Amino acid sequence: MKLYRQYANEIAAMIADGRLRPGDRLPSVRQARERRGISASTVFQAYQLLEREGLIVARPQSGFYVDLPPAERVATPKKSAGVEAAQVQVSDLVFHVLEQVRSRGTAPLGSAFPGPDLFPLGKLARAGARGMHAMDPGSIVEHLSPGHPRLIEEIELRYRIDGVSVGAEEIVVTNGALEGLNASLQIVTQPGDTVVVESPAFYASLQAIERLGLKALPVSTCAVTGIDLDALEMALRTEKVAACWIMPSFQNPTGALMPEARRRDLVALLAQHAVPLIEDDVYGELYFGSQRPKPAKAFDAQGTVLHCGSFSKTLAPGYRVGWVAAGRYASQIKRHTLMTTMSASLPAQTALIQFLQAGGYERHLRRLRGSLHARMTAASTVAESSFPKGTRISRPRGGYFLWIELPDAMDAMALNALALKSRIGVAPGHLFSPDQRFSNCLRINVGHEAPAVLPALRRLGGLAHELLERSE
Amino acid sequence: MKLYRQYANEIAAMIADGRLRPGDRLPSVRQARERRGISASTVFQAYQLLEREGLIVARPQSGFYVDLPPAERVATPKKSAGVEAAQVQVSDLVFHVLEQVRSRGTAPLGSAFPGPDLFPLGKLARAGARGMHAMDPGSIVEHLSPGHPRLIEEIELRYRIDGVSVGAEEIVVTNGALEGLNASLQIVTQPGDTVVVESPAFYASLQAIERLGLKALPVSTCAVTGIDLDALEMALRTEKVAACWIMPSFQNPTGALMPEARRRDLVALLAQHAVPLIEDDVYGELYFGSQRPKPAKAFDAQGTVLHCGSFSKTLAPGYRVGWVAAGRYASQIKRHTLMTTMSASLPAQTALIQFLQAGGYERHLRRLRGSLHARMTAASTVAESSFPKGTRISRPRGGYFLWIELPDAMDAMALNALALKSRIGVAPGHLFSPDQRFSNCLRINVGHEAPAVLPALRRLGGLAHELLERSE
Repeated sequence: MKLYRQYANEIAAMIADGRLRPGDRLPSVRQARERRGISASTVFQAYQLLEREGLIVARPQSGFYVDLPPAERVATPKKSAGVEAAQVQVSDLVFHVLEQVRSRGTAPLGSAFPGPDLFPLGKLARAGARGMHAMDPGSIVEHLSPGHPRLIEEIELRYRIDGVSVGAEEIVVTNGALEGLNASLQIVTQPGDTVVVESPAFYASLQAIERLGLKALPVSTCAVTGIDLDALEMALRTEKVAACWIMPSFQNPTGALMPEARRRDLVALLAQHAVPLIEDDVYGELYFGSQRPKPAKAFDAQGTVLHCGSFSKTLAPGYRVGWVAAGRYASQIKRHTLMTTMSASLPAQTALIQFLQAGGYERHLRRLRGSLHARMTAASTVAESSFPKGTRISRPRGGYFLWIELPDAMDAMALNALALKSRIGVAPGHLFSPDQRFSNCLRINVGHEAPAVLPALRRLGGLAHELLERSE
Repeated sequence: MKLYRQYANEIAAMIADGRLRPGDRLPSVRQARERRGISASTVFQAYQLLEREGLIVARPQSGFYVDLPPAERVATPKKSAGVEAAQVQVSDLVFHVLEQVRSRGTAPLGSAFPGPDLFPLGKLARAGARGMHAMDPGSIVEHLSPGHPRLIEEIELRYRIDGVSVGAEEIVVTNGALEGLNASLQIVTQPGDTVVVESPAFYASLQAIERLGLKALPVSTCAVTGIDLDALEMALRTEKVAACWIMPSFQNPTGALMPEARRRDLVALLAQHAVPLIEDDVYGELYFGSQRPKPAKAFDAQGTVLHCGSFSKTLAPGYRVGWVAAGRYASQIKRHTLMTTMSASLPAQTALIQFLQAGGYERHLRRLRGSLHARMTAASTVAESSFPKGTRISRPRGGYFLWIELPDAMDAMALNALALKSRIGVAPGHLFSPDQRFSNCLRINVGHEAPAVLPALRRLGGLAHELLERSE
């Protein structure tokens, strides 16, 4: 075993048996070198490995810290043993609730979008204008599906930077990730088929399953490490599964981050059962650690992972530009988009090309991650001091959602109704499962400016206290 | 009967019995007034009525002319009696042929898009930049489906100008008309259902039917006056039909223009059988006459017409902005788009809003129509002198497609293969029916600049001669 792996294992063991506790600072590189006589690079490699495994987290200018939150503070989903594939009827409820929380006067804790202040909208507009002026009119028709070749190049380049092997020929530009996800699901399923989703799952996956006449098979998902691979294997053995729709990075709604080793196992397990993986990776760039979590696509040897990304959450909200790296399904995805929407919008693609080529994207992303991390930290602190005893709150390492599990008996829809009277929107747990399993949970968006989030969050905690007292 | 109707009927009778021949000039308003003692406004009203009926055509600064082309020069579809609803397998062929004709070195006679030189792309780019700069970032999320409210206002205004009663609340902005058409078909059908299409039909309708597991029921369609209402009534009586997808104005591929009275009858007939009408109206603005043909939607008393429009063929190719005026289906269309693509792209919507509000759209459309009319006239002249004896060529009164029916024994796919060697693309008739009924027909795009079209068209005629001689 390499030295850095050995050292990483020692640290992991100390975390496991409690000698190192969440929040504890790990020995600095110098301390470790002095105490153990190992090189700085060995220490550093060990810490990077532990970070990828999800056990520690880097804080800029400060060092590495044990990150795994104590179990009693983390929302963990209830057991989903005994769940069977079933038809889904949640779409009406989703529309109903989203409509309620959408109006501008309502505090945006229920929204799915981060604050618009985080994005370089002016720069993008100028980039778009430059690009459209320079454009050869004759090229318009050539750049229909699969997308503008220069944008595809830029997307391919980002995969390469992240060490993921994806070819330009398998990339299809779509109208946001949502089109890519829906197209992926549609081409790998027939009505009546069973689709594995996380439990809890992003409601759009449930809506797509409902819309296409499929059945959902929810598999237990931990708010820290993501989908339970044992439960998934059991499901694959006992049910005929047509596809699996998963968000390994900063899952919506829990914020879970699957450790890298688990992603590898996930891909292998699905490949073994010949089940395509629809990987929803719209939050992967929004990590608080030191490097982007490798997508499951990185471990895809068979071409059966459909990796869906987007610029909507990282750069250009409202532009509706996403993509699928579709592996062996690329030509089917191309045809599907060509038949249903023809292509993504040219001005939006052009603005992105110009912006990406100008080279400011990395700088923007660093700033964005920093802002979201700060907002998450502030909101976590407020949430932890505001909700009733017995509430468990996630500690996501990326993205902008908090997952809050209220005491068992509480009903998130009732809290939602109370909150709306105070002009606060939330996303009740009911939206995230086909059988309303998470009725005492809330997804809270903390990605907006502090004045829009923190007072509302404090007030929400107060309302939860009121509701609890009433029920007692 | 009103006086102008009486006079219109007299003229119609003279056309029917041959006293007035195609191309003949009608009496001027002064002549008619002098000979018949009727007022100028009566004459004018009569001529307007005849124009709407598709019997005469106005030529600017010149007067009215008999327009109905002589039967022997017009491509008319073969009888489709005895056709039954059937599954469709044409999509592969469509993709294959479209891929062949798409490259830039190939003369664009097979393309579906008019010449990019016809559009104010620079002005649009400037309008877009203005709009994006002025935009309130907080409004981004508010303008998801059903679309930006100011764009919806502009679309509603255009309906009002055309005398069509459509409310803002039934308009949903889509990613091009294609998304609207596909969404419309999807929400009114279940797999296995039967859908009436024209014969020949736009291939995208056949692809959508194939993709959704529906059956197509092609109904005989005249290249002059559109779908045969008697045949349609027969079909509705004998088959359970879930929807009807029709292009009443400048149909793709024939260019047919249904007379106004027939549109009224069409809507009434479908309403009587409770069959929703999906009206594909992307060419309606491209008329050569004096006014826009009223869409079938204008006669929709029940809210069962889903009228699909677009800016792609009239103003902003590649922007992918269309809409559906969806009547009683509006909320279903909204939900469908929200679930599958979320919304149309914001920069594209913004550019259109700014351009439309600045007021240059009407002027642009007049110029566009003039250019297309000139291109159509020049191409018709060339086509008529280039193809073998026995060829029948349509004379569309709008749009940019010629429909060419070659002598019976000829095979358009063979001509396509020959043409490709000369770097000329065409759209063979095979693409326009589920059973390759129009194997001796071609759809020819004449909407590009003369040097790209006319020599290629002449050469194509020559190739048709060669092919015919070989087969004899």
